[in-house]
Amino acid sequence: MALQVGIVGGGQLARMMIAPAVELGIGVRVLAEQPGMAAELAASAVGDYRDLAAVRAFAQDVDVVTFDHEHVPQEVLTALVADGVAVHPGPHALLYAQDKLLMRARLDELGMPQPDWAAIATADDLTAFLASHGGRAVVKTPRGGYDGKGVRVVSDAAEIADWLDALAGEDRLLVEELVDFRRELAQQVARRPSGQLVSYPVVETVQRDGVCAEVVAPAPHAAARLAEVAARIGAGIAEGLDVTGMLAVELFETTDERLLVNELAMRPHNSGHWSQDGAVTGQFEQHLRAVLDLPLGDPSPREEWAVMVNILGGPAEESLAGRLPAALEAHPAVKVHTYGKAPRPGRKIGHVNATGDDLDAVAYEARAAAAFFTD
Amino acid sequence: MALQVGIVGGGQLARMMIAPAVELGIGVRVLAEQPGMAAELAASAVGDYRDLAAVRAFAQDVDVVTFDHEHVPQEVLTALVADGVAVHPGPHALLYAQDKLLMRARLDELGMPQPDWAAIATADDLTAFLASHGGRAVVKTPRGGYDGKGVRVVSDAAEIADWLDALAGEDRLLVEELVDFRRELAQQVARRPSGQLVSYPVVETVQRDGVCAEVVAPAPHAAARLAEVAARIGAGIAEGLDVTGMLAVELFETTDERLLVNELAMRPHNSGHWSQDGAVTGQFEQHLRAVLDLPLGDPSPREEWAVMVNILGGPAEESLAGRLPAALEAHPAVKVHTYGKAPRPGRKIGHVNATGDDLDAVAYEARAAAAFFTD
Repeated sequence: MALQVGIVGGGQLARMMIAPAVELGIGVRVLAEQPGMAAELAASAVGDYRDLAAVRAFAQDVDVVTFDHEHVPQEVLTALVADGVAVHPGPHALLYAQDKLLMRARLDELGMPQPDWAAIATADDLTAFLASHGGRAVVKTPRGGYDGKGVRVVSDAAEIADWLDALAGEDRLLVEELVDFRRELAQQVARRPSGQLVSYPVVETVQRDGVCAEVVAPAPHAAARLAEVAARIGAGIAEGLDVTGMLAVELFETTDERLLVNELAMRPHNSGHWSQDGAVTGQFEQHLRAVLDLPLGDPSPREEWAVMVNILGGPAEESLAGRLPAALEAHPAVKVHTYGKAPRPGRKIGHVNATGDDLDAVAYEARAAAAFFTD
Repeated sequence: MALQVGIVGGGQLARMMIAPAVELGIGVRVLAEQPGMAAELAASAVGDYRDLAAVRAFAQDVDVVTFDHEHVPQEVLTALVADGVAVHPGPHALLYAQDKLLMRARLDELGMPQPDWAAIATADDLTAFLASHGGRAVVKTPRGGYDGKGVRVVSDAAEIADWLDALAGEDRLLVEELVDFRRELAQQVARRPSGQLVSYPVVETVQRDGVCAEVVAPAPHAAARLAEVAARIGAGIAEGLDVTGMLAVELFETTDERLLVNELAMRPHNSGHWSQDGAVTGQFEQHLRAVLDLPLGDPSPREEWAVMVNILGGPAEESLAGRLPAALEAHPAVKVHTYGKAPRPGRKIGHVNATGDDLDAVAYEARAAAAFFTD
């Protein structure tokens, strides 16, 4: 009998686990939010991930439960664990991907380099933080934000009046210093429950409007020391928080050459899509191996450079399939990945990977091919 | 709306089209012979491929019908074409993969290099052929053979008495000279209905007991001239027979350095499994692109050498999944592919691909990893 992985959530990350699962002979089942989602092909159930009964029923016939996103409530996760279900990453780790305030506090305990931060509950709290941090700062809702949502750069407490008004009881907002960064990097590691850990090369991520637009692997002009520090941060967080599966650590590289932790994701991540075609073991295969506690694969790059360009939004009046012939004709060596999602402004509906020895040529290929789907 | 490919047959070739289809955003539906087959995940119907009504119903909602095997009867294929269904490869091409006598006659017309051959109906016919070909020859049933079945090396007509007895009416057997070959090669090409054609490098195939055991890509020590001739044969047959999709031409390299056509397959083929991990565009992605008349992908090797080793039979008293941890632990850079099939002596239930710069090391990796599943 094949091993069975149950994935909660039917988005593109679940979808992209299907291909390596089929290759390796691992069964995948998906608990999808609704019919017709990106991971439709492997959807074995439709249900609400906040509904314990639905998740419990789904978890019955699988060897491990893992996730397409970090929104499954702690009550549901801990109940599964109490049932004896293998859950990876576990609730005690996932907590720090779910709540940015808890994450900041725990990373301080682990001695990880971070931006200055504080938990704030009032306009006065923010005003005090602004006064000691150059008059501008980043305020984040601790839970539920993604792709730039739940994040505001502010210079006055009035700009978050709505968020402060909505705070109840013990709730706090997170405020962080506005980091003077040169660029953004991401470090991915994979870790098994039994402890084995492998590190991918640190990559550069390019954001536009708070959304990842491009990734270059490995990060260009990264000194060996920088890459080592990034790998050490990745391993330190994975071990310190007992993360299992893929972990992505988004990092700021400051203008004075320090690395500061920005965000964490405990699942395959957009910053690792390059690895599908650019690494010996892609992040989706690696995540499956890790959560099943199978030996991890070689994370080495297959070529000198890989560039991933997201397809954001898509064509306004046409399906992606309609653009496929021209893109494939012009770029026979790129790998096009689409998610079976309808085009919508700003939505991630696919990406393109290119690899090779010449970074300029590789970046051109990936960008030019992706442009066929977004014009 | 995504493009939809319908695959008749639920074996491992259909299964291995699923991963690239999901990646590229192409829908796949499979007409499986029974539940629980290798391509189960994409099975949208269970039915008999000889039953026109079943195949017709299956073909209704897809953009193109293609195949996991070459056994769909001509009557069914031509009825689909008459219905206006896109069928690739078409019946007029597939005919030559279905009937080895028709293939030999047509390849003679195309001027392709072949072993001497004849159509025989009686013991006397065979005796005469043996007399003029050194006393030994290969007799084949024109239809239904695979992996060494339907093939006998004989030196006396009595050895095929059963086959001769079973001949009815116009039926004939195929007899071929026993070729003095140095090794076996395979040439794959992909061809679109609109004519575009790409060639993979010629590979060496190693057979054991009539079954493919290993493939080395590209074929070692193949002079440029030999590779060119192989590519010309592949293209000539694809164009001459109007093959669409993947075509594999199995070749003998004779001791006097000629290439002779042995067999044809008009679908992804075991000799091309290396390309999943060793080529920019794997044969399963290429087949999907070709039958949909999408621009073909780059067939270039990604590394100097790729070696594919079949997992034949499998462990006697254990599932393949039970062997996965030790194999992955020892060989973190190989790619293991399993088909979701139960182990049975001699059965192809998976394969291992390894790639790299040093052929000896690559072959060792692939063989050693595969051995974990067959001891």
